[in-house]
Amino acid sequence: MSQDDERLHRAILTRVVEPGDEICGRWLREVGAEEVVRRLVGCGVRPPGMTDKRWAGLRARAERADPERDLAAAQDAGARFVCPGDSEWPAQLDDLGDTRPIGLWVRGVPNLRMWALRSVAVVGARACTEYGAHVAATLGAGLAERGWVVVSGGAYGVDGAVHRGALGAGGATVAVLACGVDRPYPRGHTGLINRIAEQGLVVGELPPGDHPTPSRFILRNRVIAALTRGTVVVEAAYRSGALVTARAAQRLGRFTMGVPGPVTSGLSAGVHELLRGEAVLVSDAAEVAELVGGMGELAPDRRGPVLPRDLLDPGAGRVLAALPARGLAAVDEIARGARTTTDDVVGRLYELRSLGFVERHGDGWKLTRQAMISVRDDRHGC
Amino acid sequence: MSQDDERLHRAILTRVVEPGDEICGRWLREVGAEEVVRRLVGCGVRPPGMTDKRWAGLRARAERADPERDLAAAQDAGARFVCPGDSEWPAQLDDLGDTRPIGLWVRGVPNLRMWALRSVAVVGARACTEYGAHVAATLGAGLAERGWVVVSGGAYGVDGAVHRGALGAGGATVAVLACGVDRPYPRGHTGLINRIAEQGLVVGELPPGDHPTPSRFILRNRVIAALTRGTVVVEAAYRSGALVTARAAQRLGRFTMGVPGPVTSGLSAGVHELLRGEAVLVSDAAEVAELVGGMGELAPDRRGPVLPRDLLDPGAGRVLAALPARGLAAVDEIARGARTTTDDVVGRLYELRSLGFVERHGDGWKLTRQAMISVRDDRHGC
Repeated sequence: MSQDDERLHRAILTRVVEPGDEICGRWLREVGAEEVVRRLVGCGVRPPGMTDKRWAGLRARAERADPERDLAAAQDAGARFVCPGDSEWPAQLDDLGDTRPIGLWVRGVPNLRMWALRSVAVVGARACTEYGAHVAATLGAGLAERGWVVVSGGAYGVDGAVHRGALGAGGATVAVLACGVDRPYPRGHTGLINRIAEQGLVVGELPPGDHPTPSRFILRNRVIAALTRGTVVVEAAYRSGALVTARAAQRLGRFTMGVPGPVTSGLSAGVHELLRGEAVLVSDAAEVAELVGGMGELAPDRRGPVLPRDLLDPGAGRVLAALPARGLAAVDEIARGARTTTDDVVGRLYELRSLGFVERHGDGWKLTRQAMISVRDDRHGC
Repeated sequence: MSQDDERLHRAILTRVVEPGDEICGRWLREVGAEEVVRRLVGCGVRPPGMTDKRWAGLRARAERADPERDLAAAQDAGARFVCPGDSEWPAQLDDLGDTRPIGLWVRGVPNLRMWALRSVAVVGARACTEYGAHVAATLGAGLAERGWVVVSGGAYGVDGAVHRGALGAGGATVAVLACGVDRPYPRGHTGLINRIAEQGLVVGELPPGDHPTPSRFILRNRVIAALTRGTVVVEAAYRSGALVTARAAQRLGRFTMGVPGPVTSGLSAGVHELLRGEAVLVSDAAEVAELVGGMGELAPDRRGPVLPRDLLDPGAGRVLAALPARGLAAVDEIARGARTTTDDVVGRLYELRSLGFVERHGDGWKLTRQAMISVRDDRHGC
């Protein structure tokens, strides 16, 4: 079966199977996407543990699925469908086992896999206080300035402030939605989410046009947790969705962090509960970066690029070539040199940063020592 | 040598030796108080490691010391001098080793040793915020209501709010001063400290009339840490004295706790630093009590009074006798029954509580089950 057929079958399944469905996930792992689709639309055997009602629902949805239409709708919205096995698939999602997404719909230029390598989630209450919004925006900006990709859920409150903070710092940010990536939710964040899709990435498990539900919000959180090296919670009441993300991060062996607040604030109570457990108290972006950056295995002190330069995709290669051999360059200079937009350049630069080719200093970017050595080696042919 | 001679020699030494002087502490342990005084006022050998200048200073102060006058001044101020070996000496101060206080000057009716058995320190910034003052007062009241003796330093800011919270709840509180107990410091807290001496205890290492110095403030903190089961820090900037207390508590194996606050507040930065280490985040008195109360070794589930009833001092015995055989009694009822003041009764009740005879429920006090059994046993002569 070709990768295209696999993609088509998985596109059907994102329309048919709810996110995080463990029974279908196990079935998919055991028999493969093509066979799952064949059994759903044909008269095949159902997976063990599946009730009559659910089976009927799945079959009805499979009947109506039209993957070519979904893929075309995605393309119209500037989105692609990334599947396990694709070079852009973020391998850390495999830690989710049978609840691993069937595929991810992705809007935006940067490479999701590269960005996820150096990402941190910052999540929190929708109805946050001014304090929460201020802290979230400052964290988003601070992490972006330190070269971290900032992941959140695109919601009102803390999530929105985090994304805006990262965007405002000219940094990299990813919104993980609980609906189709062509259908920004909440409506009031349409502008923000479109901006994230231009400068960063908007991703989700649901196919184009699909809407969010309470359970989809909750299950979306496991993707945020799995995608990133750690999750920071900024304001969360008891039983908040942000705590679900934090606990998922904990189960996945990711770092779990919390920003404290006044003990007189109910919106900090959930964070404090977390901090009385395994979570680490963080006060600012430097403390977050110190923690997640110090994780030897996932954040090696790169001694050389992990990818040879000629394996870079042409867009990234052009941006790399536009950087001066020595010293800093601003994003707009690089964009002129690479004949592309500044948004594209920002995405490429973060991608190149994940690969160890470039580093950011304030508003400027430069080649890393390793990249310079690799340039010199290329020139000298050794 | 009689206990009175020992007391006289130690009274001299509190006038001569600075709190926490380790060289003198070792010397005292090795040769005894009488011999130390003999060598200081005579031509004796100085302790090893002592410079000429310090030796001369000690000798000059020893020359001028007048322990009878100090003990008389203390008595005039309603204070007594408690020494190691006295029945009122809190044994946990011995954990300080050679920096153990030479003796403690104590103002107030309750038994320091008994109170210290069930005590928690709450300390923090002098220039606290309204948030810090509110949290401190609430903690002081909440701990007092749960039957804990609340220890602090009598200073402006957090300390004052903690003491007032405990006093306001009709509870037990101890101020540990860095000066003579007859000389309340800061001046603006004269009324508060006198009130603490009436309803609780005011203690210190310095003899009557002595004044505080920066190093005495710092060294006072080790006494607060050692006296109590744990230390809670409410607001502290980096390098705050409250952090000295917390670190001393840590070194002594006591619980160290911190109340978080906004990360945007410099007055919470020191607490957050502590919470990123070994300290436990606490949000309220219940969490503090849960932590320090759960310490099996120091807080045994009492299965019977540790003291036979006839070893109680007469005042405590009268208060115990004034409690009804069953059910709750209010402090003023008990005071009428025991023919004493309500302040005296509160002190006695906390003392009796430390011994396992009584328990507090809201505003009422009752005999514990163990105390009732002991009453019954007394009556049946078995």
